[in-house]
Amino acid sequence: MTKVRVRPNRPVYPTPAALITCADEAGRPNIITLGETFNISIAHPVILGIAIRKSRYSHELISRTGEYVVNLPTQAIAEQVWHCGRISGRDVDKFAVTGLTPVPAAVVKAPLIAECPINVECRVTAIQVIGDHDLFLGEAVAQHVNSECLDADGKIEVARLGAFAFVLGEFWTLGARMERS
Amino acid sequence: MTKVRVRPNRPVYPTPAALITCADEAGRPNIITLGETFNISIAHPVILGIAIRKSRYSHELISRTGEYVVNLPTQAIAEQVWHCGRISGRDVDKFAVTGLTPVPAAVVKAPLIAECPINVECRVTAIQVIGDHDLFLGEAVAQHVNSECLDADGKIEVARLGAFAFVLGEFWTLGARMERS
Repeated sequence: MTKVRVRPNRPVYPTPAALITCADEAGRPNIITLGETFNISIAHPVILGIAIRKSRYSHELISRTGEYVVNLPTQAIAEQVWHCGRISGRDVDKFAVTGLTPVPAAVVKAPLIAECPINVECRVTAIQVIGDHDLFLGEAVAQHVNSECLDADGKIEVARLGAFAFVLGEFWTLGARMERS
Repeated sequence: MTKVRVRPNRPVYPTPAALITCADEAGRPNIITLGETFNISIAHPVILGIAIRKSRYSHELISRTGEYVVNLPTQAIAEQVWHCGRISGRDVDKFAVTGLTPVPAAVVKAPLIAECPINVECRVTAIQVIGDHDLFLGEAVAQHVNSECLDADGKIEVARLGAFAFVLGEFWTLGARMERS
């Protein structure tokens, strides 16, 4: 086994791709695709991180409103996930273009995406410049799960999530749960 | 489709589990298992984030030395990944206990793990308290890839990485690459 030295570039994988929703002051929603989202503080409180380039329209909206929703997608909407990453909400209504369905959130003004089985409403607690992205830290103020993803005990069942991962520029399905010996 | 409100807890998935290596001033190495690592600044420069509880031995070592390596594991060493998360380097030599192989790094004093196909050497640029974890930001100063994971053009081939994901407390293999229409 030989190790080859390479130039670092977005090295870690697989990452949780997500559709991030936000809204302007008039309630007009937008969606940005991110290849990764971060569980930073796990429980007390739950703080999610998202990294957005300064040039993006969602950067401007979330900076102004201090609110966003992390919506975790399914394989069924993978094409919409790619598409939302290629167009700007400055030019088009991404809900109209993709056919995704906005649902009112419980706490924030940004909508949930109905087709995403997990939605986490966040309120921004800090914005930091970190290299080529700005890191938005957001405290999770509410979480929603599509009922068909819950088992009889109310626990989220991974196999029902239809999840996929972002892996070095590609989307990959999940395979099988690994048994522990 | 009904949405059910739940208490947020480490909501996003699938995440890049990793073995983080560090070393004390005498060169004695340690390993900590993290369920997730973060690509925050993608390219200019590459900055990786890792979140560690203050009580962990690796928190102490990395705070003192300002260096760590992110080693991405394979399915073949999943048991060692679980095991390194259950024991403390204050008590045992985790390389000795797991049989994993330390390899000298190019820039930092912490070792690479031979069995991990991707190793990213990082120098700490900041440490921040974020809720129940401390976020270590580390600039990637070198990256290594096991040669058998590179294709004929020197590009990393995902299928050769043997990767798995951390998903809501479970380990899952990757399935298949999703074609784009």
